[in-house]
Amino acid sequence: MLERYGHGGDLVTAAEMYGIPASDFIDFSSNMNPFGPPDAVQRVMEQRWRDLDQYPDPAVRGLRSKLAARHGISMNNVLCGNGAAEIIDLVIRAMRPGASVALAVPGFGEYADAARKYGGKLFTVPLLEDDRFRLSEASVFETVERDKPGLWMLGSPNNPTGQTVSRDLVLKLIDTGAFVVIDEAFIDFIADEDRLTLVREAAARPNLLVIRSMTKFYAVPGIRLGYAVGSPEVIAAMRRLQTPWSVNSLAQWMGEAVLGDEAYEQRTLAWLAEARPHLAASLQALGFTVFESAVNYLLLKLPDRCVLDASELQRRMGQRGVLVRDASHFEGLNGRFIRVAVKLNEQNEKLVQTLKAVLLESGTHAEMERG
Amino acid sequence: MLERYGHGGDLVTAAEMYGIPASDFIDFSSNMNPFGPPDAVQRVMEQRWRDLDQYPDPAVRGLRSKLAARHGISMNNVLCGNGAAEIIDLVIRAMRPGASVALAVPGFGEYADAARKYGGKLFTVPLLEDDRFRLSEASVFETVERDKPGLWMLGSPNNPTGQTVSRDLVLKLIDTGAFVVIDEAFIDFIADEDRLTLVREAAARPNLLVIRSMTKFYAVPGIRLGYAVGSPEVIAAMRRLQTPWSVNSLAQWMGEAVLGDEAYEQRTLAWLAEARPHLAASLQALGFTVFESAVNYLLLKLPDRCVLDASELQRRMGQRGVLVRDASHFEGLNGRFIRVAVKLNEQNEKLVQTLKAVLLESGTHAEMERG
Repeated sequence: MLERYGHGGDLVTAAEMYGIPASDFIDFSSNMNPFGPPDAVQRVMEQRWRDLDQYPDPAVRGLRSKLAARHGISMNNVLCGNGAAEIIDLVIRAMRPGASVALAVPGFGEYADAARKYGGKLFTVPLLEDDRFRLSEASVFETVERDKPGLWMLGSPNNPTGQTVSRDLVLKLIDTGAFVVIDEAFIDFIADEDRLTLVREAAARPNLLVIRSMTKFYAVPGIRLGYAVGSPEVIAAMRRLQTPWSVNSLAQWMGEAVLGDEAYEQRTLAWLAEARPHLAASLQALGFTVFESAVNYLLLKLPDRCVLDASELQRRMGQRGVLVRDASHFEGLNGRFIRVAVKLNEQNEKLVQTLKAVLLESGTHAEMERG
Repeated sequence: MLERYGHGGDLVTAAEMYGIPASDFIDFSSNMNPFGPPDAVQRVMEQRWRDLDQYPDPAVRGLRSKLAARHGISMNNVLCGNGAAEIIDLVIRAMRPGASVALAVPGFGEYADAARKYGGKLFTVPLLEDDRFRLSEASVFETVERDKPGLWMLGSPNNPTGQTVSRDLVLKLIDTGAFVVIDEAFIDFIADEDRLTLVREAAARPNLLVIRSMTKFYAVPGIRLGYAVGSPEVIAAMRRLQTPWSVNSLAQWMGEAVLGDEAYEQRTLAWLAEARPHLAASLQALGFTVFESAVNYLLLKLPDRCVLDASELQRRMGQRGVLVRDASHFEGLNGRFIRVAVKLNEQNEKLVQTLKAVLLESGTHAEMERG
């Protein structure tokens, strides 16, 4: 299967499986900003490659200071990591959750994988299709009462559903005394991010940590850069467990260079405001159920009459050079679900046309022509 | 102190401490190839920066395959990491040494730090100045008998002493049943590396792991790239604990690009064969005791009559824009020791002249004029 390593965006495996060069795919399986890396990234590469002969700043002072200024918090509230993945790993280890981590499913698989790696007992709150995958306050507090999990890990916006968790719900959850981790890896794709983010609350509270990523919005997942915002005590505890120099120099320099590129930000938000509803409408016209999303990816349910399951649909799309995410690998979803990124108009059109061709070929055709 | 983060090469702290821009220092505190990154690094940066919009290959297939071919082993024997530091962390976690890790001191501080982080009990085998810091077989087997440590971590060449551990000693140690980790991060600086390395033995034995670095020899510590060679079982156990995508794309591409750059290799080995004895002789002429080293750094003892200790010497050198390593931070050494990298002739001359000026100014002067 394409998700051999548990995630989307694995072009090397795709090339092996479908016999197409990695560079020839249009990749809707990973949720990157389709504009690609900002120009500042190229400048950093060209101007600073000779400086790779020095160790990275072990304390990531330059970037942490800029991030702190951006969020109006202190440098001691910020820890940079080798991708958000390292932050997830560190917070679980630092919090020693022992027996209990609560998650919403479907959700980003790393939370469960990381929790299991350290022997954590998992409790899951189901996000229900009938409820359009909203996180229900009632189920959260049922789990609080019944299972008393020590640590909560929630994506906001959640992956693969694209929905945010309400701030009120998070603040109530913190008040129960549990340690709450909110993964805001995709929040920059929301225009009123500043109103939604919990970074300032995380800086001020002992039991809230916010995870951020810089590599989705700025389209540089290859370089690995995420960060955590929390109380100085939690940040210090995570820092003690971190491998020295885990954030490479280029990640630090690029992070500093792209922050504050307002033109890139505005262009991205303007594109998404137009492209997401347009793509959603085209997919609905093909018979897909498109779940509401705040960000740059969409969870889709296959048309009822589609005889292919997600895995087979993925394979047939892959053979045509278009990668989609088989969402059945997310706990809580089945073979009727796929996830696609929103990309530039021409690419989205290619997605829609290729999906249409695959559906037609599979005999979902008659239904489509009627519908 | 300059070693605020436990290591050399921290130019950001140096800049803060001495009020000199980071780029103006000549850095003898970190042991990089002074030729700087090979040209292939620049080519990778210029040609591939746009590809950073894809995730790194989670399985690092291209680079592992090249490393396997280079060493004549299988890809399943190789794990790449976010610097040798991640490999050290992973092997300690994978081996669950529980109560007992044995180290030689002085040695690279990360072994002890990583062991302590996971609650390991430490046993140390002293390397003695009177013995010119050779690892004595007798003391190793005394520790084996007395303390029965489950895991050994030895640098070969050792840092800060620059001495290799004999292959025979390692093979005998393996035969006792202990798990042995040999850190060969600097072995590429030795001309007959192929005869000395234990990578092939590590691939074939269940209880030997070799750690290698690609960032010292190729002068790219900023990008983070190390690897481990071991049995498929040990490699798989470490891999399970690794954070996803911990080896960034540029590290993977650069690693592939620099391997097999024989001109760079030959130039480096030719330079070192000439520069190390020359620098050693100049330092001896200043009254330093220079310990024998197989690689690109030298452990030095301050002249007997020098009234400065290593920390003060480091400070006065730093104020003049020359960074040396205060080796008193290595367990087993005291304030009479510093470590310096071997660099290009002009830089080495600057080191010698600056040391001379600092010694003269401090009153070691009279002794020097007599000597």
